[in-house]
Amino acid sequence: MRIGILTSGGDAPGLNAVIRGAVLRGSVVDGHEFVGFRDGWRGLVEGDAMPLARTQVRGIARDGGTILGSSRVSPYREGAGPEVVRAVLAAHGVDAVIAVGGEGTLAAARRLVDEGIPIVGVPKTIDNDLDGTDVTFGFDTAVQIATDAMDRLRTTGDSHGRCMVAEVMGRHVGWIALHSGIAAGAHAILVPERRTTIEQIAAWVTSARERGRAPLVVVAEGFLLDQADDPHSERGLDAFGRPRLGGIGERIAPRIEAATGIETRAATLGHVQRGGVPTAFDRVLATRLGQAASDMVGRAEWGRMASLRGTEITSVPFAAALDALKTVPEHRYDEAAALFG
Amino acid sequence: MRIGILTSGGDAPGLNAVIRGAVLRGSVVDGHEFVGFRDGWRGLVEGDAMPLARTQVRGIARDGGTILGSSRVSPYREGAGPEVVRAVLAAHGVDAVIAVGGEGTLAAARRLVDEGIPIVGVPKTIDNDLDGTDVTFGFDTAVQIATDAMDRLRTTGDSHGRCMVAEVMGRHVGWIALHSGIAAGAHAILVPERRTTIEQIAAWVTSARERGRAPLVVVAEGFLLDQADDPHSERGLDAFGRPRLGGIGERIAPRIEAATGIETRAATLGHVQRGGVPTAFDRVLATRLGQAASDMVGRAEWGRMASLRGTEITSVPFAAALDALKTVPEHRYDEAAALFG
Amino acid sequence: MRIGILTSGGDAPGLNAVIRGAVLRGSVVDGHEFVGFRDGWRGLVEGDAMPLARTQVRGIARDGGTILGSSRVSPYREGAGPEVVRAVLAAHGVDAVIAVGGEGTLAAARRLVDEGIPIVGVPKTIDNDLDGTDVTFGFDTAVQIATDAMDRLRTTGDSHGRCMVAEVMGRHVGWIALHSGIAAGAHAILVPERRTTIEQIAAWVTSARERGRAPLVVVAEGFLLDQADDPHSERGLDAFGRPRLGGIGERIAPRIEAATGIETRAATLGHVQRGGVPTAFDRVLATRLGQAASDMVGRAEWGRMASLRGTEITSVPFAAALDALKTVPEHRYDEAAALFG
Amino acid sequence: MRIGILTSGGDAPGLNAVIRGAVLRGSVVDGHEFVGFRDGWRGLVEGDAMPLARTQVRGIARDGGTILGSSRVSPYREGAGPEVVRAVLAAHGVDAVIAVGGEGTLAAARRLVDEGIPIVGVPKTIDNDLDGTDVTFGFDTAVQIATDAMDRLRTTGDSHGRCMVAEVMGRHVGWIALHSGIAAGAHAILVPERRTTIEQIAAWVTSARERGRAPLVVVAEGFLLDQADDPHSERGLDAFGRPRLGGIGERIAPRIEAATGIETRAATLGHVQRGGVPTAFDRVLATRLGQAASDMVGRAEWGRMASLRGTEITSVPFAAALDALKTVPEHRYDEAAALFG
Repeated sequence: MRIGILTSGGDAPGLNAVIRGAVLRGSVVDGHEFVGFRDGWRGLVEGDAMPLARTQVRGIARDGGTILGSSRVSPYREGAGPEVVRAVLAAHGVDAVIAVGGEGTLAAARRLVDEGIPIVGVPKTIDNDLDGTDVTFGFDTAVQIATDAMDRLRTTGDSHGRCMVAEVMGRHVGWIALHSGIAAGAHAILVPERRTTIEQIAAWVTSARERGRAPLVVVAEGFLLDQADDPHSERGLDAFGRPRLGGIGERIAPRIEAATGIETRAATLGHVQRGGVPTAFDRVLATRLGQAASDMVGRAEWGRMASLRGTEITSVPFAAALDALKTVPEHRYDEAAALFG
Repeated sequence: MRIGILTSGGDAPGLNAVIRGAVLRGSVVDGHEFVGFRDGWRGLVEGDAMPLARTQVRGIARDGGTILGSSRVSPYREGAGPEVVRAVLAAHGVDAVIAVGGEGTLAAARRLVDEGIPIVGVPKTIDNDLDGTDVTFGFDTAVQIATDAMDRLRTTGDSHGRCMVAEVMGRHVGWIALHSGIAAGAHAILVPERRTTIEQIAAWVTSARERGRAPLVVVAEGFLLDQADDPHSERGLDAFGRPRLGGIGERIAPRIEAATGIETRAATLGHVQRGGVPTAFDRVLATRLGQAASDMVGRAEWGRMASLRGTEITSVPFAAALDALKTVPEHRYDEAAALFG
Repeated sequence: MRIGILTSGGDAPGLNAVIRGAVLRGSVVDGHEFVGFRDGWRGLVEGDAMPLARTQVRGIARDGGTILGSSRVSPYREGAGPEVVRAVLAAHGVDAVIAVGGEGTLAAARRLVDEGIPIVGVPKTIDNDLDGTDVTFGFDTAVQIATDAMDRLRTTGDSHGRCMVAEVMGRHVGWIALHSGIAAGAHAILVPERRTTIEQIAAWVTSARERGRAPLVVVAEGFLLDQADDPHSERGLDAFGRPRLGGIGERIAPRIEAATGIETRAATLGHVQRGGVPTAFDRVLATRLGQAASDMVGRAEWGRMASLRGTEITSVPFAAALDALKTVPEHRYDEAAALFG
Repeated sequence: MRIGILTSGGDAPGLNAVIRGAVLRGSVVDGHEFVGFRDGWRGLVEGDAMPLARTQVRGIARDGGTILGSSRVSPYREGAGPEVVRAVLAAHGVDAVIAVGGEGTLAAARRLVDEGIPIVGVPKTIDNDLDGTDVTFGFDTAVQIATDAMDRLRTTGDSHGRCMVAEVMGRHVGWIALHSGIAAGAHAILVPERRTTIEQIAAWVTSARERGRAPLVVVAEGFLLDQADDPHSERGLDAFGRPRLGGIGERIAPRIEAATGIETRAATLGHVQRGGVPTAFDRVLATRLGQAASDMVGRAEWGRMASLRGTEITSVPFAAALDALKTVPEHRYDEAAALFG
């Protein structure tokens, strides 16, 4: 068979390992051929493809980013759609597609599968908010980077007796905040799933200070203050319709300082969390997912995505990932809060 | 309740996070008190204990090693045994014990539980060879360190056109070799579970060279050459009964060179793999296991150990870990071999 | 002799190594005693001191921050001054002071020396803007952190075909931007010493793109656009007199995007650059400076600071550091610009 | 002009940055053309060359190794020599050569220059044993890797109350041992420049233990025990003329254990020290040296090598590097010994 691969949506450490895993598994073992579509669905709807032989993927498992490029283009954008996709696949002699991407990518893939296009998926989100798999690749790297950064921030907090606020990724879910906060020993973990008042945050910060610590607060970018406490806590847009400069971390730091009297500084970790060399964990996971996706093509498992369950890779229908956002469950948050509350 | 903790056996990154997790969970939430027994079972049989209040465990989740010390002393050594243990616990007013350790530790704990001593366990092995849990803490850190080292060795191999052999930990199982080998893109992964001939290894190495690569071989310390190929491949002892200087890596490197004509160098990663700052993954896992162990004491789950299953912490009887060594299954090895074979 | 040590001003990786170096050198070799004043000059004017025996400094060379704490308090603040300092030193039996700090600290120390207080200095600034020494400790760590971050940002830029802007520390000088920019292979390096127009920046960015690269721009926080190009480029204050949220990186990113048509994202590295485990280079440099400072006390070199010249530690008068800011010289900037211009 | 570059001798982090620095400086600014000779002098005497345009060197500053390959071939080997070199240069239209290498490379280059071949040099040795420059690139990376490894070994030593011995690179000089030992806080630093008895080492180890520390010993691979103490301390060869398996670290560990009664383990860091991503310091230094070498060609500075003096790059005659090995001076060793002695 001739298999097309595309990587779509935001960057995530491990994309190249997925590509390499699929190509090595499929070409060496099963004799498939591979092509890569450039920049996600854009390459597929425009017929922009590159060969993906064994030599193209050598040594890339440790490289961040994706050799195929990525974009947020939809296969259903103006002038595209299933007929265009079908025509491009035919023109390139491609029998099936492995789509690596997040919620939007998998939702588009599901529609295309419903139209008869043979696609299997590999879930991708550094936020870890996709259901249907224990964990997604890229998440472990993001948590490690955030943890390393907090390890550094903590020493400066200690030197100055300051409270440090670290804003990490996570628009809708708090997984990165939760895990990096546990790992770094944060004194408050603020996640989108749990609205919290400034009073509660100040109580945690003050309690840490009273135990002799320089308070460390980790906040997911999508965290919202309790509405009663802050009617204006929604993320604002500036006059040009762009997100307001300064995220939630920079906005709550002065409020924590005001409420506690403790000098408080914020750091926004930003894009650094989604690039660069993947952790060994993510390289292994991504490689295995890529291998599994190639096998799934061989078994014609259209409309399903590779998934980690315990220690094994299996597959689940796209719907398993798309039905619900995987949020931090209450017991996990409370378990973490027991460390600082 | 008053709970004693001990850490026993070889060092593993995450031991301190287990201790901190148990103490914070148990003391802050449930009002337990904690004491630490120094150097594993030695401290318990000799009554060598230290207080473990919240202040003792602050900030230690990121520190490698164990603040309690460790040793390989058995509670059944000459002059010890269940009566001694019972007496020490009574003397220190300790109601139950959390024992953090590997196969030997858990086997001893099982005997003590059978004698009526209230013990719960936390599994520990960087080799990941304990059954009954998806993964053990310390393993992720060891894999990361081995992967980083191989990333470095690879560039030198490339510069000189050499074959590099990296010997990693794993006396009885090849998990570290398998995962670090996948992550680093090794061209041969040699594990204790799979005897291999020099001819096969040379074929992999030559094949990598023919594809233009500097061959990278990862070998677990417990790997054995196929017996037909090497009747003397057992690990030897020197005249003083010590393990022979030079491990399997250094012993197979000249044989690979002889068989392939490619200059070959070995590096033994050694003790570096089991010390130092744990990865974020291991800090989170170890913290959660420590918390769970404290909860298990509250529920009087004697004779059980905390265990990771998928994304949740549960508990299993000691027997689940002790009945069989968790070896690399055939399908996992073959899956990895598809990347280089 | 009995020697007091204080660390003053912003946090810098290596402060603890200075303390350890001074204490070990002075106590073990020369039989001095040491005390630490807490939080910089505050501890000295308030008589807040802690013992600094060998046991207090063990193992701290690798720890970021300062075990003595730091602050920006001046010894000439209301109610302080040379008489107060003299009295505190007498009360604690302290014969001389080692002051570790930046420009403000050394300037205050110079005034106190002029009043007859026996002080030697150790220069500290992660910005590397102090003259009189080849380099200051903390700078190497800051450059490494910034470089690592840019290595990560680059892969995301590549995946999305974006221009990434990294804002690094450096209010008055561009040393961190210069060195991290060279190390990371930036396509534009923007420093306070060299006003640049948006047109020039856009030309560099466009040129990189035309060579097939995802443009990477590093900008020091104190960089100013060419005035003709931007009459409002001074750092603004918000209504509360705080620095405006959003630094120069976030402010020029949309202008680069507008001028080039290339999607552009900014990341502000912030406080992460000044905390955490120091590089080996900084640990060695800081240790040697601390040792030298102890020796300088033995030789009564009041009013002088330890200084690195080539491979040797020497001492220079405070004035050598204070007379002029050490800016990036033209030939160094032009040399770096040759890499991207 | 058309300039040839070659990299010769052992691998060192920063080789690619030298190549990139030379090519970017020479081609973009001065309009030179570049070719690379493969595998050091081998490529030059065999006429094995590759083009080195801007596109070949992009993004390589952060990559370990050398894109040109390296070898230990001499230009004076059988069948080579100045006439062959001259003929190859003429055949490839190469006007001058930049030779990047250590003592052997520079000595060969000096002979060729004496024969009229236009060559400039860039000094390379991770051991830092070349005179004529403050420091060589690759050394900082090697020290950082060794320090990181010792940070890890230390925690395991602490957990088990063991003495850990780390063997680092340095056949003839102890610079890596000295700097990594200072940075990691070693309790004994053993260098080739200073023969030491087992009794002295045991005294240091015992003293550290008595202060409550797990002793950490760093030993350069070329260290020799005091002869009176060990008549057999020369590095032995096995029956095949290979270096004996097991270096000095593994050989002194049991002797330390015997002399102190403290369980002692050795780790040999090996090739990991000379590969992989260079530190930011080495990338900057190597880039500047490469740029300077290109400029030196423009000024026809044959027989000279680029050199770091303080903060500036200058050039010195090859003889400055070749007249004497740069050993650790007594005052530097004694200064370090003051930290543990």
